[in-house]
Amino acid sequence: MPDLAVSTPTLAPSCRPGGVVPIDRHEATAQATLLKAVADPARLQILNLIRSSPSQEACVCDMTDAVGLSQPTVSHHLKVLIEAGLLRRERRGTWAWFTLVPERLREIALIFG
Amino acid sequence: MPDLAVSTPTLAPSCRPGGVVPIDRHEATAQATLLKAVADPARLQILNLIRSSPSQEACVCDMTDAVGLSQPTVSHHLKVLIEAGLLRRERRGTWAWFTLVPERLREIALIFG
Repeated sequence: MPDLAVSTPTLAPSCRPGGVVPIDRHEATAQATLLKAVADPARLQILNLIRSSPSQEACVCDMTDAVGLSQPTVSHHLKVLIEAGLLRRERRGTWAWFTLVPERLREIALIFG
Repeated sequence: MPDLAVSTPTLAPSCRPGGVVPIDRHEATAQATLLKAVADPARLQILNLIRSSPSQEACVCDMTDAVGLSQPTVSHHLKVLIEAGLLRRERRGTWAWFTLVPERLREIALIFG
């Protein structure tokens, strides 16, 4: 492996588990973008609130009260989760209702499961 | 619910899936901290490299080559992963070897699984 020899001249032969190829940068970047969307306490509380709701859905009015944040702040977090494909939004009467996108949540579990 | 009535005066009675209590802020913050540690393309590639290695371990010299980053940059990412409890470090001869902490990775899968 001449390139390797040049790039890491002190490399010991014993220090190769054998041509392992990790996920490529493009895939890793897509996974990191998805993980950044959930790496926030308020967004985790929102996802958990919807998941633990008997109806598996919630509206902003439920969230402001349960998460303890203002409606504009909750709306910002909801926008991030929708843009990440983790939530669906459906307007019904006065309120917009939010449901999870289970297959998208499963994608995260599968990275580490 | 006088407090709720004050905080969300336009709240419709139909807009309550029922006293759902989400994970508390403390637990959500701990989960977010763990997720931030993995929400990075290079760190995801490092975790994947170790996991996909036949020996389930890797040293920095494997990572610089496979992830395409300098040794100081890889070492920084390894430090973040160790501090998050996701990797263990073991010095063996010339090299430090890194192994996964499966139960910590499972914690992430369980948040979304």
